[in-house]
Amino acid sequence: MTSERLARVALNKLVEPGDPRLLRMVADRGAEAVLEALRQEAMRHSSSGLAARLRTVHPERDLEDAGGRGLRFVIPGDPEWPEQLADLSTAGTLTERGGTPLGLWVRGRGDLGSLVRQAVAIVGSRSSTEAGTWAAADIAHQLSMAGWTVVSGAAFGIDQAAHRGALTAHRPTVGVLACGADRAYPTAHREMLEVIARDGVVVSEAPPGADVTKIRFLARNRLIAALATGTLVVEAALRSGALNTASWTTMLNRVLMGVPGPISSAPSEGVHQMIRNRGAVVVTRAAEVLEAVSPMGEHVLTERREPPRPHDALTVAEQQVLDAVPVVRAAGATSLARTSGLSAQQVSSALERLLSLRLVIREGEGYRLPPHIA
Amino acid sequence: MTSERLARVALNKLVEPGDPRLLRMVADRGAEAVLEALRQEAMRHSSSGLAARLRTVHPERDLEDAGGRGLRFVIPGDPEWPEQLADLSTAGTLTERGGTPLGLWVRGRGDLGSLVRQAVAIVGSRSSTEAGTWAAADIAHQLSMAGWTVVSGAAFGIDQAAHRGALTAHRPTVGVLACGADRAYPTAHREMLEVIARDGVVVSEAPPGADVTKIRFLARNRLIAALATGTLVVEAALRSGALNTASWTTMLNRVLMGVPGPISSAPSEGVHQMIRNRGAVVVTRAAEVLEAVSPMGEHVLTERREPPRPHDALTVAEQQVLDAVPVVRAAGATSLARTSGLSAQQVSSALERLLSLRLVIREGEGYRLPPHIA
Repeated sequence: MTSERLARVALNKLVEPGDPRLLRMVADRGAEAVLEALRQEAMRHSSSGLAARLRTVHPERDLEDAGGRGLRFVIPGDPEWPEQLADLSTAGTLTERGGTPLGLWVRGRGDLGSLVRQAVAIVGSRSSTEAGTWAAADIAHQLSMAGWTVVSGAAFGIDQAAHRGALTAHRPTVGVLACGADRAYPTAHREMLEVIARDGVVVSEAPPGADVTKIRFLARNRLIAALATGTLVVEAALRSGALNTASWTTMLNRVLMGVPGPISSAPSEGVHQMIRNRGAVVVTRAAEVLEAVSPMGEHVLTERREPPRPHDALTVAEQQVLDAVPVVRAAGATSLARTSGLSAQQVSSALERLLSLRLVIREGEGYRLPPHIA
Repeated sequence: MTSERLARVALNKLVEPGDPRLLRMVADRGAEAVLEALRQEAMRHSSSGLAARLRTVHPERDLEDAGGRGLRFVIPGDPEWPEQLADLSTAGTLTERGGTPLGLWVRGRGDLGSLVRQAVAIVGSRSSTEAGTWAAADIAHQLSMAGWTVVSGAAFGIDQAAHRGALTAHRPTVGVLACGADRAYPTAHREMLEVIARDGVVVSEAPPGADVTKIRFLARNRLIAALATGTLVVEAALRSGALNTASWTTMLNRVLMGVPGPISSAPSEGVHQMIRNRGAVVVTRAAEVLEAVSPMGEHVLTERREPPRPHDALTVAEQQVLDAVPVVRAAGATSLARTSGLSAQQVSSALERLLSLRLVIREGEGYRLPPHIA
């Protein structure tokens, strides 16, 4: 056990997740030096809150206790550490949170670092619609099948649907919590978190046993954004916490994506705003997510088109005649020759083909389009 | 009656709308010279289709006949001519259509040029959904109230809803037809076209009496895009003609906008694709259309937010305490002081205020958030 690791465990218990000042100091001077400085300060003010808190810190015992509950503390430099979290050290702060975490408490059989080598975050409203829930689960399922790991926050609504989509594909998923990784929030999701930990991981920056607070939700959101190559917001009202995750995604130069929805749906308002004002990519299916998060040139989509129709196989002359055939009042061959600028011979053989393809119908002496084709 | 005007009437009867070669020649050499060249050619080949067609052309009589049916022929240089159509001369071609029209047949009491000085085109699927129809009518209504003219194609579905939205605002609207301006397509819209002509105008590039053809729809779409400052596509399946209007909008460097919809809705697929691949601006209400089409700096929207909540009036210390209050397990004042880093005195007065605002509830000796607030 290195003293650097123990110092990080100690600091993790002393300060709130995502405390940007503390994390900056640790990045500059190392955890041991910062912990030592705090100890010096506590000695000078032995009646301070800090001094009281320091007396509760026993990192070796805390690590052991956590280990007993299936938790490990992963720190920068560990094989399982996700390198992309380093981006947080330069990304700045949002809602007074920021910085690379001291470490992450991890529970589960998955290897966090390997899991998030190709990861998409899928987040959104707790009060999601049926359509949103379905979209989140379906896209998560498809992405998982394509070898991408779905990262989410295990909340009600969209988060839950995203994890569920991955689990129904029998692929590991990563749940990032605002409470301790040994706890369940919401408690109704305790069983789902167990299933996630079976092949994936449950992760938290907050120490074991910690309850959720708003601060911890905000700190947690930056981790979801930082762990993934891109974040997909499926539904989000204007006040949704998912928009905080979206802001972190942009801060971190990750790919921000949104699923559009009905303009009358409040849970889509935040997404539409994100598309309008933050340049989020509009995605409607997993293939479009893959195109957005994959290295340039991979998973490039051609524009979707309707299946080919008889039209598409026409010669230029046939198309020209067809384009000249009236929708309502039938026109004779002579009139069609005039409109299309083709010879009587060309028009007559084109009409023969168009009639056989039922693209044109005969009416009296003339020709017109079938009803409802134009 | 200038001979230039008569030559344009004659050529308008001889060629299809949006014939890019002919229109280029007219732009370069003038209508009289081009008509004269065609006459020379007809004399050399007196049995040709062209010669036969030329014999049917009597521009003065045609103008008189049209006038009897309430139609006027507006040409470049006329006070009523919309100057923005000149952009078509350099915009290139799409589906073999293009060019500034020889003139426009106009019916109705409105002044075309004045009407389209501030105009938005609203187009979309003929088979629109209830939601799409409602959005088109509502946005058209609001834009009309704001002094903008709605331009559309008088088709079933979105087009009709757009005109209707303008008419219910008692504002003039512009209907651009693929058939002659004296005719009604679809015939079910004859009455609506009469209402449009009362204060607005019904416009067509095709000569009076002309039936609709695919060529004429394609030529018509370029006029809708060219007349307006921007085009809003409300719903469009992947094959929708509205996407052709969208292409013209981009070709003409006009503002392209789309209304998002459910990802499961076929009539929204074309719109989502347009947003993804052609950079269409996402709009969900009229104010966002105004922002997009207005000169830079006018109609700038601030991000929509939910109405202010008690939260917003908290002091920094109160907010810090609130952020430290657990969601599930109540915490005592000492623990909150530790988490928030504030003094016991600060925490106690903050808790008093938070309790009075019902942002925090008391549970036993401790404090927690009310259910369902986080």
